[in-house]
Amino acid sequence: MNDVVIAIDAMGGDFAPLSVIKGVDFFFNNLIGSNTNVSFHIYGQEEKVLPILLKYKRVLSNSTFVDCVDVILSDDKPSFALRQRKKSSMYSAIEAIKDGTVTGVVSSGNTGALMAIARFVLGTLPNIYRPAIASVFPTKSKDFILLDLGANVDCNADSLFQFAVMGSAFAKTVLGRDNPKVALLNIGTEEIKGTDAIRKAFDLLKCATDILNFKGYIEASEFLNGDIDVIVADGFVGNVMLKAAETMANTIISLVKDEISSSFITKLFGFFIKKKLSSSLGHFNPKTRNGAMFLGLNGVVIKSHGNADHIAFGHAIKFAVDAIRNNLNAKIISGISSVE
Amino acid sequence: MNDVVIAIDAMGGDFAPLSVIKGVDFFFNNLIGSNTNVSFHIYGQEEKVLPILLKYKRVLSNSTFVDCVDVILSDDKPSFALRQRKKSSMYSAIEAIKDGTVTGVVSSGNTGALMAIARFVLGTLPNIYRPAIASVFPTKSKDFILLDLGANVDCNADSLFQFAVMGSAFAKTVLGRDNPKVALLNIGTEEIKGTDAIRKAFDLLKCATDILNFKGYIEASEFLNGDIDVIVADGFVGNVMLKAAETMANTIISLVKDEISSSFITKLFGFFIKKKLSSSLGHFNPKTRNGAMFLGLNGVVIKSHGNADHIAFGHAIKFAVDAIRNNLNAKIISGISSVE
Repeated sequence: MNDVVIAIDAMGGDFAPLSVIKGVDFFFNNLIGSNTNVSFHIYGQEEKVLPILLKYKRVLSNSTFVDCVDVILSDDKPSFALRQRKKSSMYSAIEAIKDGTVTGVVSSGNTGALMAIARFVLGTLPNIYRPAIASVFPTKSKDFILLDLGANVDCNADSLFQFAVMGSAFAKTVLGRDNPKVALLNIGTEEIKGTDAIRKAFDLLKCATDILNFKGYIEASEFLNGDIDVIVADGFVGNVMLKAAETMANTIISLVKDEISSSFITKLFGFFIKKKLSSSLGHFNPKTRNGAMFLGLNGVVIKSHGNADHIAFGHAIKFAVDAIRNNLNAKIISGISSVE
Repeated sequence: MNDVVIAIDAMGGDFAPLSVIKGVDFFFNNLIGSNTNVSFHIYGQEEKVLPILLKYKRVLSNSTFVDCVDVILSDDKPSFALRQRKKSSMYSAIEAIKDGTVTGVVSSGNTGALMAIARFVLGTLPNIYRPAIASVFPTKSKDFILLDLGANVDCNADSLFQFAVMGSAFAKTVLGRDNPKVALLNIGTEEIKGTDAIRKAFDLLKCATDILNFKGYIEASEFLNGDIDVIVADGFVGNVMLKAAETMANTIISLVKDEISSSFITKLFGFFIKKKLSSSLGHFNPKTRNGAMFLGLNGVVIKSHGNADHIAFGHAIKFAVDAIRNNLNAKIISGISSVE
């Protein structure tokens, strides 16, 4: 039986603190599994959090509440939050990792602030140049991991190489893949295409056969094929790919729904279709994959979507628990050290 | 009445030369409009093209056929095609622009070869540093132009600025927009985000109010909102955004179709839904927007999709005709010269 202790920022996100406390409760009731003993340190403003906490007995009895006088706002600049919000719930939750009180943190708050504070307070793992943001995405068949999603706008070959090692460790610990297939995003699959950094990263990756299962380049047109476990890109490109694809998916799905609801006859018959559709499109439901992982930091830091409801937040907690229980950071350190 | 003469590479694309000749016929029958006199020079291998050409009387009577002994293959490297395929239909069609025989070329052939040969044979317009690939994309409401789609993997601020000027001219001539709204793709809308090149391009663009209607940054999550006419990105990012979005659209649409066809009851009722869906999703039909424009070259060069059928190829021809008739290149030259 492993003991996992996680810090929760109760004040981050559009529906906090209710969605957060309900999310912890949802985690206990639906996602905890049988082999782990999980408890929480919950950081937030007493007057807002305690009245809710008192209603969720299982959460209450498995957590320690820590009152924080300040809150980081969604439009705070990262540099401002880092300097001026040291008494906030997010800052205090991250400090709890450094103190050794907890091993991970989950927050739905300001992404830039979370990265800036986590990087400053925790620092990076040994020999890691830059942290990266990674998340899990669906395909028609199996899920894959995409990184970086925006922590770094310009990446050199060494950083891209490290992202591959970190992404591979993430795929092992969170997706349970044995020998994750890693690919490098490029705009052509010929070796001559792409930027200098990408071509150099390719050369590094193809030599690292002892620690990585590198499959070469992948194009954006192939990212939903489901035959790769980890796709590596710089943060600018990863961010654009993720947002463009999500926006397109939402647009098409809303067009389909609008058409089904647009007249009496399609509405009537649409009932049968909708039922089937929601089961297959449900596979693309972001709730069950909520949570971006900040890889390469001294501690497990999970960013939940700002608009996460309790179900999504519960899944972000599960992400953190899986990463901690399966020693994500130890696997990253061992991967990186074996090539230094 | 304007006279427009266009060179057609009859040998490029998966279904050439049939789809090409039928495409010219489709153009004459459906897209030519009333104010333009269009004729063609058709380049291809006589034994393959002539038997088809003889069946399409309207094409035959409005075109000159030029026999070419060679063909550029879809997997030819651009450098090889440039050096070794000078007798090919594509090469000869591009040379016809330089000779003054025609003012534009349309090809469904090898994109890299088309760009390399066009750049070598035609050169760039005065003061243009690099050509860019642009195309028209749908949103729920109005279409927009995205560039660069892959001609340049790394772009400095000056090139991004020129892409904005060229894209704006393209939106005026092909989409008929009076004062096109131009935006720069970034991963955040705050002025501090993005790469150095993007931030410098932003500074250049916001000072060019006399020639551009610059609206600032746009994120990939907003690209389908329909309130921007031209989105500027470097070729790597533009290529990834385009391919990721297309792949996601195709995946969701095929999931919907699969579900509708998956059982007797949904199949029966799906008939009503499908009819409505195909009209609204038809807006996303790439056929009517087929054709990427190589902007910044001394001549109008249109790349049609490799898998274009005759309808799609006909629309690529219309692209070329609109660009020529509305003086696209003169507008680019005037835009660029006013800031030099």
